[in-house]
Amino acid sequence: MSNNRLVRFIKRPAGKPTPDIFEIDEEPLRELGPGEFLARNCYLSMDPALVGRMRDESNYAGQVNPGDTMQAYGISQVIASRNSKVKVGTVLLGLCGMQQYIISDDSDGFSKINLGLADATAYLSAVGITGATAYFGLLDIGKPRAGETLLISAGASSVGSITAQIGKSLGLRTVAIVSSDDKAEQVKRDWGYDAAVSYRGKSIEQLSADLAEACPHGVDIYYDNTSGDISEAVLDHFNDHARHVVIGRLGISHLNNTRDDTGRRDNNTILAKRIRKQGMVLLDYKPKMRAAVLQLAKWLRQGDIQVQQDVLEGIDRCPEAFFRMLSGDSQGKQLVKLADINPAADPTPLWPGRLLTQRWFPTDKLAQLLAR
Amino acid sequence: MSNNRLVRFIKRPAGKPTPDIFEIDEEPLRELGPGEFLARNCYLSMDPALVGRMRDESNYAGQVNPGDTMQAYGISQVIASRNSKVKVGTVLLGLCGMQQYIISDDSDGFSKINLGLADATAYLSAVGITGATAYFGLLDIGKPRAGETLLISAGASSVGSITAQIGKSLGLRTVAIVSSDDKAEQVKRDWGYDAAVSYRGKSIEQLSADLAEACPHGVDIYYDNTSGDISEAVLDHFNDHARHVVIGRLGISHLNNTRDDTGRRDNNTILAKRIRKQGMVLLDYKPKMRAAVLQLAKWLRQGDIQVQQDVLEGIDRCPEAFFRMLSGDSQGKQLVKLADINPAADPTPLWPGRLLTQRWFPTDKLAQLLAR
Repeated sequence: MSNNRLVRFIKRPAGKPTPDIFEIDEEPLRELGPGEFLARNCYLSMDPALVGRMRDESNYAGQVNPGDTMQAYGISQVIASRNSKVKVGTVLLGLCGMQQYIISDDSDGFSKINLGLADATAYLSAVGITGATAYFGLLDIGKPRAGETLLISAGASSVGSITAQIGKSLGLRTVAIVSSDDKAEQVKRDWGYDAAVSYRGKSIEQLSADLAEACPHGVDIYYDNTSGDISEAVLDHFNDHARHVVIGRLGISHLNNTRDDTGRRDNNTILAKRIRKQGMVLLDYKPKMRAAVLQLAKWLRQGDIQVQQDVLEGIDRCPEAFFRMLSGDSQGKQLVKLADINPAADPTPLWPGRLLTQRWFPTDKLAQLLAR
Repeated sequence: MSNNRLVRFIKRPAGKPTPDIFEIDEEPLRELGPGEFLARNCYLSMDPALVGRMRDESNYAGQVNPGDTMQAYGISQVIASRNSKVKVGTVLLGLCGMQQYIISDDSDGFSKINLGLADATAYLSAVGITGATAYFGLLDIGKPRAGETLLISAGASSVGSITAQIGKSLGLRTVAIVSSDDKAEQVKRDWGYDAAVSYRGKSIEQLSADLAEACPHGVDIYYDNTSGDISEAVLDHFNDHARHVVIGRLGISHLNNTRDDTGRRDNNTILAKRIRKQGMVLLDYKPKMRAAVLQLAKWLRQGDIQVQQDVLEGIDRCPEAFFRMLSGDSQGKQLVKLADINPAADPTPLWPGRLLTQRWFPTDKLAQLLAR
């Protein structure tokens, strides 16, 4: 048996994570015990939410502790199994860790994915958590009607870009808030935004003025990935009966100390404009997830949704990929490829296979990760 | 013909209104012109929203100007008519003014009321704007389920007390936020609140601690009549999927300068708890108003809803009643009685009369008044 090369988390970051929190290591793969299976990790997903797991919070089961293999979600293919529920060749989605192989006895902690519906890596973006977050936030909370204006903060993000493309295919006018003028041009080109506004270096008043120009008919749906000052500038532009979908990413770091999140209250605007402001956590949508993924896969096949992937190769490049993602330099969804998937070995029937009638996506853990 | 005694608005208040803004006056009633009708005002309603009309805001058609008869909504009975749409004896709801008689040619500005459904004065509270605000805010936005906790700020107000009683009859646990400990005791006695908390003199943290005790199972619906610091203390106590109904009364004065309304942002809590926060303006519910009033009248007849009225008699006591209302000293809905209604003279068929199939309640103007 070969060795398992991995990224070890060696110390908690003081403030922003720095490269010295990781160390590349290698250890021999042990024999499988009863009920265990061994899977080869093929793709790992670099997610901002992983930072939250590095913090020292007692009682939080999901945290990663110094000495542990660094956590990461990914796609893995089973190569040996002593678990009757997990067949060799099966392709799984779950918490694989930043390592070449994973040994587990927790078949419930992983979801089988169906390669007939979409490519494996799509399960880490458009037909995964990212796509579902866009889908439910926009459709279930946003309740879009053709011709309305959809404003998206962090409009260049994975969630933002998919939300914009869904919106576009539904006949909405789409407007992005992004971090720079260059990015504003880029998102119009790449994701079909009708307009885009940069927030960097602007006061709330300046951003508000730019939004007025970008949204001449006001804002009907605000897909809010950021909260904070950016959202404050949006307050001025809501139409009557607008929907403010709170997805939150940046603000999320304040979750344990919400008193820090200060600024203008929005009750007056919410009342005068009869706005519906509502939080969205993917975990709540488990019962509807299957339908969403089918629709997302369909849009993806039709080209209505496109995704950019930024793929580095090899386990040793995980730290580089991780910090690339954190710094915002990734050109699309940041992945690390460790091995090829072998679709021929997958015993799972392809589309429209039986997996569509099984519990298969996503696990609670996966959804909770997003919510942090 | 007799004289018309009235309250004249003689100068705009500098800051809080003071008694010297009013003057009692009297003028002869003139003859009716073609299309006009004359009605005797029977009950006048003292409403906080009238203060907003005293301000000097150009372009606001509803404002009252120095020299005008002071505005007030009320119940009036037609005693002479040269308008084919308005029969003598008809009982009307509308902007009657603080005066004994009103002459108008605007039959659309008034709504006929049906004395078979409820007493005339009930149309100024439980089956009027107040009741409908409680009804739609709680039912349509709050979406209550039996056993949930309903928290109401300004819990002793007309809207608050009716909301609480509707909630109680639907099997909710009801908790009030009020201005003093005495009032806390009183609202438990009068409106059946399960618990009540006073905010006066307390920090946000103290109020939050008291709310924790009053709402041991958290808050599922927050019927928010106040906004501001009180709402901030409530943030800590929302349950997952709570509904925050923004009715707004105090905060409403900031409508033209929302940047003044500062404090903690609630996006983090809205996201983590998946709260739905939504503004309610009665004007939006015109198509559903008839059903609401029928239900409210039914609750009133059954005793599920009770209203307290604080009635002073005579036109000369209008200023006293107005400031009594403003100071919070009124024991229930503040009315001024000017004359008896004569139900026998009313040509309107009683319940279930044809009026229920007519446009009859409320006028746009009436609803807008509430929204200010």
